Amino acid sequence: MNTLGKTITCRAAIAWAKNSPLLIEEVQVEPPKSGEVRIKMISSGICGSDDHVLKGELVVNFPLIPGHEGAGIVESVGDGVCSVKPGDKVLILIIPQCRECDACLHPKGNFCDKQDVLPCSGVMLDGTSRFSCRGQKIYHSFRTSSFTEYTVVPEIATVKIDDAAPMDKVCLISCGFPTGYGAAVNSAKVTPGSTCVVFGLGGVGSAIVMGCKASGACRIIGVDINEEKFPRARALGVTDCLNPNKLEKPVQEVVMEMTGVGVDFAFEAIGLIDTMVAAWNSCNNSYGVCLIAGLAPSDAQLSLEAPKILSGKTLKGVCLGDYKTRDCIPQIVTDYLQNKINIDPLVTYQLPFNQLHEALELFHSGKAIRCVLLF
Amino acid sequence: MNTLGKTITCRAAIAWAKNSPLLIEEVQVEPPKSGEVRIKMISSGICGSDDHVLKGELVVNFPLIPGHEGAGIVESVGDGVCSVKPGDKVLILIIPQCRECDACLHPKGNFCDKQDVLPCSGVMLDGTSRFSCRGQKIYHSFRTSSFTEYTVVPEIATVKIDDAAPMDKVCLISCGFPTGYGAAVNSAKVTPGSTCVVFGLGGVGSAIVMGCKASGACRIIGVDINEEKFPRARALGVTDCLNPNKLEKPVQEVVMEMTGVGVDFAFEAIGLIDTMVAAWNSCNNSYGVCLIAGLAPSDAQLSLEAPKILSGKTLKGVCLGDYKTRDCIPQIVTDYLQNKINIDPLVTYQLPFNQLHEALELFHSGKAIRCVLLF
Repeated sequence: MNTLGKTITCRAAIAWAKNSPLLIEEVQVEPPKSGEVRIKMISSGICGSDDHVLKGELVVNFPLIPGHEGAGIVESVGDGVCSVKPGDKVLILIIPQCRECDACLHPKGNFCDKQDVLPCSGVMLDGTSRFSCRGQKIYHSFRTSSFTEYTVVPEIATVKIDDAAPMDKVCLISCGFPTGYGAAVNSAKVTPGSTCVVFGLGGVGSAIVMGCKASGACRIIGVDINEEKFPRARALGVTDCLNPNKLEKPVQEVVMEMTGVGVDFAFEAIGLIDTMVAAWNSCNNSYGVCLIAGLAPSDAQLSLEAPKILSGKTLKGVCLGDYKTRDCIPQIVTDYLQNKINIDPLVTYQLPFNQLHEALELFHSGKAIRCVLLF
Repeated sequence: MNTLGKTITCRAAIAWAKNSPLLIEEVQVEPPKSGEVRIKMISSGICGSDDHVLKGELVVNFPLIPGHEGAGIVESVGDGVCSVKPGDKVLILIIPQCRECDACLHPKGNFCDKQDVLPCSGVMLDGTSRFSCRGQKIYHSFRTSSFTEYTVVPEIATVKIDDAAPMDKVCLISCGFPTGYGAAVNSAKVTPGSTCVVFGLGGVGSAIVMGCKASGACRIIGVDINEEKFPRARALGVTDCLNPNKLEKPVQEVVMEMTGVGVDFAFEAIGLIDTMVAAWNSCNNSYGVCLIAGLAPSDAQLSLEAPKILSGKTLKGVCLGDYKTRDCIPQIVTDYLQNKINIDPLVTYQLPFNQLHEALELFHSGKAIRCVLLF
């Protein structure tokens, strides 16, 4: 059936309100407007940021179609789109790269002005939505929305990948994998022989562990309250596992005792203030570097003991591994195809889209590093 | 008179209690013990950290002899001292370099375990003091104490400098100058064409401005509530001066408006939470780097909006310009002698030690960048 220029009716998951269960509904997806791309989704991961959205920890507009970690095939393109064409395998990008704004033009910036995370408007760049359900407008999520059979994204929020890419896995390279791996190898530039601690051993945290290991870290301490994650974490490179709920003193004190001087690199991959402070306080006072890869709730304040800052340590936020997304993400897919990196251990479950609730349960229970939804 | 091995009686400034006026008293200075050096002070700057001590904003023990930014000549050395000898011109170092601790051995660390700033014990490494007055023990300040005709410091807290060094000026290279200059050229690595903001235009802030200028920054915004500092700041390289007390909106909003996107590098050289937060919020969200060179009060908490960290910016504390002090400070003196850097504009007043109170008044009024005390 030729869908070009037509509204497509398909299935999508809708969050009608904060904290309400996702419902799979029949939705209408309009054709892409100028500078936009309509994509048939093939797979999508479930990421912690999606959970923040569903719980209302980020200020967003409901109802919306969540999801952002997606891989698909271009169905059609709007006027002026030249970087992708129908039939291309693509990833969608929570952080776009417009190549025109100050951050895109700066050698070290990647937080493109056209992003829709902080804050989340829920609409396309022209201020409107492409989704509706029973006549009601449905908002986009992060200008990506991957929990749907078809989505529309700005051209600057999608990138063509290698034709050989296995679409049931590479969705992780759209967000979670580069967010974690890049935090270690690109932002922190973890050094050989160094000591690291990683707070949170989900998808992003596991990718951080892989980046630390690949960079030659000699000790990688993994912290999580869900011990089901520990065997997989050890397999990826974690040398010591800590469950803060089973310690008799604060985890940062235990890390300090284990290392004597604090770690070289601490990573927070959860998005909680307590773990951000614990990560900061786990760092060596003089040369420690604390990387924040978790997205904190909208109104949260991170409070640090001010005099202790002077001794030299560093706090750095990392968004999508500090990668310029359209420039760098396709190469990560190619690196995967060439066996330079291996994302397979992160794909612990794959379920069809209609088992979305089972997939969410696997996410919440910590049983999955990533459960990939297949459309 | 041969003083070797004898207690020396001389004049020193004593702070008998928090917030009490400094009194110049006759004190006894014991000979250096093993690993220590007794120094005849020639000159001393007055630094903001001394003011923090006198106001009790750092937890210290009183009575004490303040001061740490000093230049002098070695009078005698204790057993085992081999890096300096009597007659050597030396600087004293608020941050020592023992070359044995973890921070000293790490390529990027400089916050030596043997420092006595955070926290301040006020005693030498063996736990005792070398100063007394009318039979009462007097504490050291930062294990340096420069407001005295003679002081005793650990060998690791002093370094020989070039014989040709002009002793009435190079005391600034003991702390204030490298703290500021190094924050710009060594820690931030300010880039050519970049935009910077400097909060506080005293000695450290002025040295930061010099470092930004030397690194090729194209715009340097200087912030201070004392407009008397503005002409000198402009002469050093500041392109725009802001007095927060005369602005109709918060200074960070003005900086954002002036730059459109926030600065590449923000420096805090005061030690106040409000200015640390303003510096952080003046930075570009994606690639901005905020350097904290000011020492905050002991109990202060720095509170940052957590979700905004993720967009990529960096907060870094800088202690003494991230220089390994004994390795790097002598070269800065040599660079000054070779006209590679010029600290002369920072020495705006020189007064004899007995005019200490006039010197402190010049410090507090902001009339001086640095007033150097001469012994």
